[in-house]
Amino acid sequence: MTCVFCDIALGRILSERIYENRNFFSIYDYKPEVEGHALVISKKHFETIIDIPNIMGSELMDAIKSTTLLLIKKYNLEGFNVISNNKKIGGQLVPHAHFHIIPRRKGDSFRAWNLKKRIKNFKEDMILIGDK
Amino acid sequence: MTCVFCDIALGRILSERIYENRNFFSIYDYKPEVEGHALVISKKHFETIIDIPNIMGSELMDAIKSTTLLLIKKYNLEGFNVISNNKKIGGQLVPHAHFHIIPRRKGDSFRAWNLKKRIKNFKEDMILIGDK
Repeated sequence: MTCVFCDIALGRILSERIYENRNFFSIYDYKPEVEGHALVISKKHFETIIDIPNIMGSELMDAIKSTTLLLIKKYNLEGFNVISNNKKIGGQLVPHAHFHIIPRRKGDSFRAWNLKKRIKNFKEDMILIGDK
Repeated sequence: MTCVFCDIALGRILSERIYENRNFFSIYDYKPEVEGHALVISKKHFETIIDIPNIMGSELMDAIKSTTLLLIKKYNLEGFNVISNNKKIGGQLVPHAHFHIIPRRKGDSFRAWNLKKRIKNFKEDMILIGDK
């Protein structure tokens, strides 16, 4: 079965790598939401982030942070979002685990999420102790 | 300086913990976007995810995955989003590193992101090699 991220990982599709380590690499998104929209992708095929072994967590953090720091430097960014969509209902278009890194700039029209109606406030679940 | 997530981490504000390990814990969001909206939070104060040491990556993965698996079981979920907003311009409301876990259900009105206009397609940056 064909997987576009496996094809990129294996070099069958050429794509500029922003950063890579042993188990992860990053590239610019094919259809960027904003300038510099990047993806951190596992080299091995895992369907969702649930399937990524915990032991790869340090390398994943390295890949996310190193990629983001390169984008911050390149674009002089003030902020960013890291987003992983999982399963079709979660908006995952390629069933191969990945994280979006979204550079944020003043006046961009990006919103990290959009919800028509918020459910009730669960304020009562939290109790402040100590100071009156 | 007061930090609500440090107060929760230190037990000054009581909140039901979904899961915890040595360096991370998860709770339900105070203002949930959808039912079961959870947060994975570092016990130590780090401003953004850039400040989380890579060495904590495995525990972070454990906290994100374990929390998500508990939510999947509890709510019989088909998908989810993992989102980290960083810096005010990125939509970060509490300047203490955290990841949102957003349960997704058929017919919810949640969108992982919302952008008014997409920038140009960078299709030309990728070259398929091998198969014609």
